[in-house]
Amino acid sequence: MVILGIDPGLAHTGWGVVETRGTLCRARAYGCVATKAHDPLPERLGAIHRELAQVIERFHPTDVAIEQIFFGQNTKSAIATAHARGAALVACATAGCAIGEYTPMQIKQAVAGTGAADKHQVTYMVRTVLALDHDPKPDHCADALAAAVCHAHLERTLAKARVAVPR
Amino acid sequence: MVILGIDPGLAHTGWGVVETRGTLCRARAYGCVATKAHDPLPERLGAIHRELAQVIERFHPTDVAIEQIFFGQNTKSAIATAHARGAALVACATAGCAIGEYTPMQIKQAVAGTGAADKHQVTYMVRTVLALDHDPKPDHCADALAAAVCHAHLERTLAKARVAVPR
Repeated sequence: MVILGIDPGLAHTGWGVVETRGTLCRARAYGCVATKAHDPLPERLGAIHRELAQVIERFHPTDVAIEQIFFGQNTKSAIATAHARGAALVACATAGCAIGEYTPMQIKQAVAGTGAADKHQVTYMVRTVLALDHDPKPDHCADALAAAVCHAHLERTLAKARVAVPR
Repeated sequence: MVILGIDPGLAHTGWGVVETRGTLCRARAYGCVATKAHDPLPERLGAIHRELAQVIERFHPTDVAIEQIFFGQNTKSAIATAHARGAALVACATAGCAIGEYTPMQIKQAVAGTGAADKHQVTYMVRTVLALDHDPKPDHCADALAAAVCHAHLERTLAKARVAVPR
């Protein structure tokens, strides 16, 4: 299974492509769409949509894992993130990907075993689980890869449950 | 000039196409993209993007006028609207339209002469300015047409200013 993880943001949208084989999870690629604060909003959203559409075209993910909005943010930054999320989700929906939405806490819980994990722990665990020889940087990339790993874990658990309780 | 007005919303995104010739403003078409609350978010955003892209392909607007988020909304509904706005703006940016963003108050001021105008006044004035023989319904369509009329007024004022003060 190929999973595209997305950490949406107007200034920085992190993305990471993870491939799973059995219990193995490996990173295929990751990156970050950066947009400039002084550029018009439509242009910034167009860039996020265009670059993610290119990533999808290149890696053909079947599934997408995307971070939900953190309501603890102030309203202005939550609204900016929601615009970016809208642009990102259009790219994924147009490509027909199955989409899972996860809270930051669910993602941290899945990769580091606790919803209270800090950025360093998440980066360390993403590096370990994906057997990378370096820290994925910037943090937006680590967060996007973490979302993909969270989705992979959940899918594997669900698959086991299906085997255990055949319908 | 052909202007597409958009009143973005996750459940209902109103759109209206207005054509200007000199001081005349006429409606070419209007409609509303309705999405169901129980459908997944990516599917709803995909529908908003797809239907607006079809409207743009059909009417070839050069300009788009879109309502800004009203910060008086509660955070949850502002975030839902921002997702819809993101999807709508991607369709407009991809088509290369010039995009104007207006607050609800600016739009009411432009069509009804006061930022405190209520829905009935806005609908009445949109009907009058566009010489329609009926009230544009639902309200989302009237609001979208109002955004387009606001943009037309502003463009006309700017054009006059350019003539008055040649550079």
